[in-house]
Amino acid sequence: MHFIQTLHLIILSWYSLFSKNTKEKEFFKSLKQLLGFAPKNLELYHIATTHSSTNHDVGFNNERLELLGDSVFSIIITDFLYHKYPYKNEGELTEVRAKLVSRSMLNNLSIKLGLPALVHANLNASVLKSSSTPGNTLEALVGAIYLDRGIKKACRFIEQKILRVLVDLEVIEQTITNFKSIIINHAQKNRESIEFRVMKEDDEGIRKIFEIALFLQGQQIGSGSGPSKKKAEQAAAHEACLYLSLVEV
Amino acid sequence: MHFIQTLHLIILSWYSLFSKNTKEKEFFKSLKQLLGFAPKNLELYHIATTHSSTNHDVGFNNERLELLGDSVFSIIITDFLYHKYPYKNEGELTEVRAKLVSRSMLNNLSIKLGLPALVHANLNASVLKSSSTPGNTLEALVGAIYLDRGIKKACRFIEQKILRVLVDLEVIEQTITNFKSIIINHAQKNRESIEFRVMKEDDEGIRKIFEIALFLQGQQIGSGSGPSKKKAEQAAAHEACLYLSLVEV
Repeated sequence: MHFIQTLHLIILSWYSLFSKNTKEKEFFKSLKQLLGFAPKNLELYHIATTHSSTNHDVGFNNERLELLGDSVFSIIITDFLYHKYPYKNEGELTEVRAKLVSRSMLNNLSIKLGLPALVHANLNASVLKSSSTPGNTLEALVGAIYLDRGIKKACRFIEQKILRVLVDLEVIEQTITNFKSIIINHAQKNRESIEFRVMKEDDEGIRKIFEIALFLQGQQIGSGSGPSKKKAEQAAAHEACLYLSLVEV
Repeated sequence: MHFIQTLHLIILSWYSLFSKNTKEKEFFKSLKQLLGFAPKNLELYHIATTHSSTNHDVGFNNERLELLGDSVFSIIITDFLYHKYPYKNEGELTEVRAKLVSRSMLNNLSIKLGLPALVHANLNASVLKSSSTPGNTLEALVGAIYLDRGIKKACRFIEQKILRVLVDLEVIEQTITNFKSIIINHAQKNRESIEFRVMKEDDEGIRKIFEIALFLQGQQIGSGSGPSKKKAEQAAAHEACLYLSLVEV
């Protein structure tokens, strides 16, 4: 009886070791395919894919890595946009970046990469997909790559696996609402006169401030201010678009 | 006469070249002392120290570099804090980071580094120092270092010239207001009973939500909610501190 018990225990521990090794191999394989290169420290990727609902201990769920990955994402995206658009000013670059790192974009990218399948969470699958968990996991994964293989590999992953294949920057640029175009199109369509008139140009203090009013058929229907004419015009056009219900609040 | 005019022109262009070279040498010297290493592409540092009041053209003032530098600053600080505090959770790390990269901290650091002396701006000196220009210039400088010498040199500059000499992390940690400590100290000092009572623990949905009420001598004087008991307690303690005027709004 004692012999049978011992044999049973040996078989169990062999099986457990074998099954653990198989799982690790599968995890490694999935990661390698996802990343485009071999991960070194698998433990980091286990943490990156562990949601806090499974493990509340600091450092054993992905919340710290998510914070780190968020910063890594930000510098890589900013560097990419800085070089891609040498003629865009900082406001325009910020707008494109905001779209690229928005919660919905990150969730979307994470799902397209198949990342949710690797996540350990104490949530049901539909909650998992509909929450911000996919996007957070993507950030944590980027944090793990950064710690495991350095910023160059993180950059390569984001550029090759995300920016070049999953993101259409032209579409993103179009979704940045240009209120001035909307109101000008509206005026042209209805053959109405439209005028952006500078009401005030404050040159005192640290920065210039422009105040611009928008007149449609001679009637003021919007006004706005900003550090440049362009920004003040956008603000005035936004107000006018809202007034004419051309855009939603 | 013709000879004298030619000689005059030659002397003028020599003088202009000499004076430009001298200015460039001085700029290089000041930068080398400030950075702790030799800059390579001086043009980047000229842009980094050019305020938009002097040059409004995109790419010829420091606004684009400021955006880039802000991201570089963020990853270097986050990486530093991530490794320095392995037991702090993401919320605590975010709080320390927010203090380190706050507008007032960046302005302060820039002034301590003597950066405003290098800035070209169309502003008077007192406006220059009291505005957010010093902090923005520091961010732009970090952006210039990153483009000129890479992330490692930017990291070395921030760690050696800022974090190790100009920043006292212990003081920063102390300034992060711990409302729970304040209210507990108050109760102990006045020998009053204090109790944090969990009123609700919502386990549904994606994240847990705790609702905690704070009772002083049996009277509820604060309540708060959050994704962890710790955060809900802080929120309740904050409300109680405000109620008792122990902290300012």
